[in-house]
Amino acid sequence: MLYFVTSSRNKFLEAKEILKMPLKQISLDLPEIQAIEVDEISRFKAKLAYEKVKKPCLVEDTGLYIRALNGFPGALAKWVEKTIGWGKFADLLKDLKDRRAYAKCVVCYYDGKKYCFGKGKVSGSISPKPRGVNNFGWDCIFIPKGFRKTWAEMSVTEKNQISHRKKAFEGLIK
Amino acid sequence: MLYFVTSSRNKFLEAKEILKMPLKQISLDLPEIQAIEVDEISRFKAKLAYEKVKKPCLVEDTGLYIRALNGFPGALAKWVEKTIGWGKFADLLKDLKDRRAYAKCVVCYYDGKKYCFGKGKVSGSISPKPRGVNNFGWDCIFIPKGFRKTWAEMSVTEKNQISHRKKAFEGLIK
Repeated sequence: MLYFVTSSRNKFLEAKEILKMPLKQISLDLPEIQAIEVDEISRFKAKLAYEKVKKPCLVEDTGLYIRALNGFPGALAKWVEKTIGWGKFADLLKDLKDRRAYAKCVVCYYDGKKYCFGKGKVSGSISPKPRGVNNFGWDCIFIPKGFRKTWAEMSVTEKNQISHRKKAFEGLIK
Repeated sequence: MLYFVTSSRNKFLEAKEILKMPLKQISLDLPEIQAIEVDEISRFKAKLAYEKVKKPCLVEDTGLYIRALNGFPGALAKWVEKTIGWGKFADLLKDLKDRRAYAKCVVCYYDGKKYCFGKGKVSGSISPKPRGVNNFGWDCIFIPKGFRKTWAEMSVTEKNQISHRKKAFEGLIK
């Protein structure tokens, strides 16, 4: 049994679908340090999770990196969601010429001694308007490279076949 | 002698000018938790500072809250500065009708037992373009209420007479 410490039911369900092994959610809202890079945050979170749960566990952190904004919002994307919201955010970016972005996920496993990382990155672009209602977070404004649909216009299964989270979990298993 | 734990020389100099008492800078870049509200962050930072420095000490945190963006970027303003930059950020906000914003500063003193807070808030608006070269951070896009100049167009002394940081330190002293 693997323990995944996350307050996000959506992330847990994605991970469960990807990992195809017994996975248990421990729903804790861990404080996260301020950073743009998810690597830094996931390491800090894994240590904190281990200290609280006292069992080897998994955490993950995800970011949306917009090239023309030098990587903003990165790991701070959830704060854009909580304040501005993706509709208004897309509207603020309407005149952006270079719309390239990437999604990054870092999964970190910590057993009290050793950190183990899995990383996944997916290139894509920012949609001029939010589209779709599936999945969650900034999926409605992210169009993965090679597709016309945003992640929110894809089914969970369709998204998980190509997602940054899938790549990160696969990297960890290796 | 009072110890002010901050990695920002600018903030230290402002505090020194405001407090008019012996103040020593301890330059530590403390990890900050993710939040929009400065209150939360300053409390967390004060505890961390005390644990590292092992002396009663002061920390502060500052945020810029834009009303039409539901308070964004708040305490995360420095990450907007590090990535997007204030010029480009002002440009993204060019069509914003409601330009009201406020600056907030929370100073926290912790001696290992008791927390003591000072809070300061200044209303104002976001300038359509950055103006001025004085002071620092988002001073170039913040116009305090009742003025035409941004804080970056004022001298340090002029800004400190009306600043959120002055109000916060004055609140703490009381």
